[in-house]
Amino acid sequence: MIYVTRKVHFNASHRLHNPKKSDEWNRTTFGKCNNPNWHGHNYTLEVTVAGNPNPETGYVIDLSDLKSIIEEKILDQCDHKNLNLEVPFLQGVIPSTENLCEVFFNELEEAVNKAAYGDSSLYSVKLYETERNFAEYCPFRK
Amino acid sequence: MIYVTRKVHFNASHRLHNPKKSDEWNRTTFGKCNNPNWHGHNYTLEVTVAGNPNPETGYVIDLSDLKSIIEEKILDQCDHKNLNLEVPFLQGVIPSTENLCEVFFNELEEAVNKAAYGDSSLYSVKLYETERNFAEYCPFRK
Amino acid sequence: MIYVTRKVHFNASHRLHNPKKSDEWNRTTFGKCNNPNWHGHNYTLEVTVAGNPNPETGYVIDLSDLKSIIEEKILDQCDHKNLNLEVPFLQGVIPSTENLCEVFFNELEEAVNKAAYGDSSLYSVKLYETERNFAEYCPFRK
Amino acid sequence: MIYVTRKVHFNASHRLHNPKKSDEWNRTTFGKCNNPNWHGHNYTLEVTVAGNPNPETGYVIDLSDLKSIIEEKILDQCDHKNLNLEVPFLQGVIPSTENLCEVFFNELEEAVNKAAYGDSSLYSVKLYETERNFAEYCPFRK
Amino acid sequence: MIYVTRKVHFNASHRLHNPKKSDEWNRTTFGKCNNPNWHGHNYTLEVTVAGNPNPETGYVIDLSDLKSIIEEKILDQCDHKNLNLEVPFLQGVIPSTENLCEVFFNELEEAVNKAAYGDSSLYSVKLYETERNFAEYCPFRK
Amino acid sequence: MIYVTRKVHFNASHRLHNPKKSDEWNRTTFGKCNNPNWHGHNYTLEVTVAGNPNPETGYVIDLSDLKSIIEEKILDQCDHKNLNLEVPFLQGVIPSTENLCEVFFNELEEAVNKAAYGDSSLYSVKLYETERNFAEYCPFRK
Repeated sequence: MIYVTRKVHFNASHRLHNPKKSDEWNRTTFGKCNNPNWHGHNYTLEVTVAGNPNPETGYVIDLSDLKSIIEEKILDQCDHKNLNLEVPFLQGVIPSTENLCEVFFNELEEAVNKAAYGDSSLYSVKLYETERNFAEYCPFRK
Repeated sequence: MIYVTRKVHFNASHRLHNPKKSDEWNRTTFGKCNNPNWHGHNYTLEVTVAGNPNPETGYVIDLSDLKSIIEEKILDQCDHKNLNLEVPFLQGVIPSTENLCEVFFNELEEAVNKAAYGDSSLYSVKLYETERNFAEYCPFRK
Repeated sequence: MIYVTRKVHFNASHRLHNPKKSDEWNRTTFGKCNNPNWHGHNYTLEVTVAGNPNPETGYVIDLSDLKSIIEEKILDQCDHKNLNLEVPFLQGVIPSTENLCEVFFNELEEAVNKAAYGDSSLYSVKLYETERNFAEYCPFRK
Repeated sequence: MIYVTRKVHFNASHRLHNPKKSDEWNRTTFGKCNNPNWHGHNYTLEVTVAGNPNPETGYVIDLSDLKSIIEEKILDQCDHKNLNLEVPFLQGVIPSTENLCEVFFNELEEAVNKAAYGDSSLYSVKLYETERNFAEYCPFRK
Repeated sequence: MIYVTRKVHFNASHRLHNPKKSDEWNRTTFGKCNNPNWHGHNYTLEVTVAGNPNPETGYVIDLSDLKSIIEEKILDQCDHKNLNLEVPFLQGVIPSTENLCEVFFNELEEAVNKAAYGDSSLYSVKLYETERNFAEYCPFRK
Repeated sequence: MIYVTRKVHFNASHRLHNPKKSDEWNRTTFGKCNNPNWHGHNYTLEVTVAGNPNPETGYVIDLSDLKSIIEEKILDQCDHKNLNLEVPFLQGVIPSTENLCEVFFNELEEAVNKAAYGDSSLYSVKLYETERNFAEYCPFRK
């Protein structure tokens, strides 16, 4: 089994806020991440596809294709955007690093699996909110 | 001459916008950086002090003191904040990387020069907006 | 399953030495890492918690809580310390990167599992002795 | 289970080209990576060994031994070389990152397993072609 | 004075070879960098412009413009190319890191100075051949 | 003028302590860096040579020569050593980052200037104690 990864970057603003809870609960729970005037990050996103390489190309997936899919599905929606207000597939989602990983995985899965060779498929999505804080959604690893 | 540097990080939201100009001018000039819903960055800030070390300590400046000054003067004002709306010393400033460097230098200079040994003094402020885009304000280098 | 990670740094001195063996065995086995006058490292530690996020917060674990636990359990004991002489939970342990990972995992597990949401739990501890040499203790991965 | 890793670097030239296919197929499939005048990379290679540490040393494998094995088996063959023309064990292999990982794993396995403690063994080979594109061969992970 | 920098990456093959000298001189002088089958690198290029920011934009130079100039003048010529054989402005140049910096500076200067605000101008070109070996051409610094 | 740099790494233990002062003064002044049981670092050292390249090679200095000089003059003395106790040229020096830079510069200067082409010469020594704290000794820059 081979795991092939493409890493990309984007910048966005966000705040952590649960609209079903009081402002005080949100302030206490999320601290400075709840700032109503927003803060932001340079996000680093790693998308990993697992499978066997095509013997004609040596590719599990053409990384140019993977790059294009990530651009269309994620970067065009999120780069230089407000993640709470402007991204259709994030409506109703608290934009924690954990939740972003899972939602990005679901956005990418169909197109990635179609572009990957044979029965290779999307394996994990890893997102760095900062160099020190990051999350990975990897539903198939035990 | 010895140059000693402390590197720190902070996260903030901002937009590039000149309120004296039309919305169209701003959109054309700043592109996606003008997004009215804000975007954001993980900023990396490097503050450099130049001078001769104190023979009793080997320090041009105690980097714990420099760290405390940067925290008080810059990080407490800017971290997890909206640079356009919430930072008193940035009112009226277009928060480009270039302008942030110069304003941060001016905010830091008095306290840094007081804490540095002998006639050592603040030499430069370098700010990374992303890993690929950065600016430095260094008024004394030829 | 989501994996969320906090990365931290600390500096320490150590030497590799097995007191049950002769000095010559130690010199031959550990080479310059056996220097009786110690050497040291800037260690980078990554602590990963695995589970499902709390739907109210989007957090598998609040990374501020994880940071506090790592500070109390590991950094306050090890930062700027001699790992052979000064850390109670390392008494009798040869401080190889492998052994440090396993001991740190055991020190962290109870508090991390208590702070994590639901049945989320400590998943792995990864320690970089240098940028080029690192180890991970991950008892549950197959 | 502990995973211990050694990271190394090498520089090489290569091109992606399948000699069983037409020049046009190769140009269309591999784009600029098919340049007949070659291009090149600073490759970063991470070799991971998994197992239990030797209680006498705290080592799963002595990283000096692992370093020597990687130098003999991989770096002496590939560093500052043309991967298509000059590496015996790559004859007939399209040097995609995926294929390089798998071939390197097979080159390393016997010597690594012999040098590792007890039943510890080679676990994965990860190769960065660039900072943004990388692959891992890890045949035992589920 | 403010210094603003854009960092980019490209991959290329090359060899160090002085055609006016014998093969033996070249082998002795350049060692494995003289390999007639080429080797290659992931080059990192930093281009710095110095001056005062435009008060209407806060920009010394619009980094999108700088990015476009670097792409046209350097990346389109050098990325995935053989620096000895395929780059017109490198004909007759030994492609050492030092020489590449100086030639790149000369290729960039006119377009950069035209795009920069007021009398801001190209200040330096820094090129990393590897993470450990790099050169900077900076003709105006004392 | 071209500046060419070689970056290297070494690991060492040290403590900040001025033997002419009381233990209390040392504890107050240097805090945890004064720990009598030592702490340590992965130091990163960058050595820069400035001048004009040799037209026959394109080199300001052969970086293999520079590497050998740094190994002989600095790494063989300091790597895996105690900087306070074991390095002859550091006797009587408080091993602050600032002082180490200056002493390393003086240790390197004669051999570097002899190996560099023409009137090229050692320009600066930059030392990272951690990723966030570093110093540079550069006696000729204005």
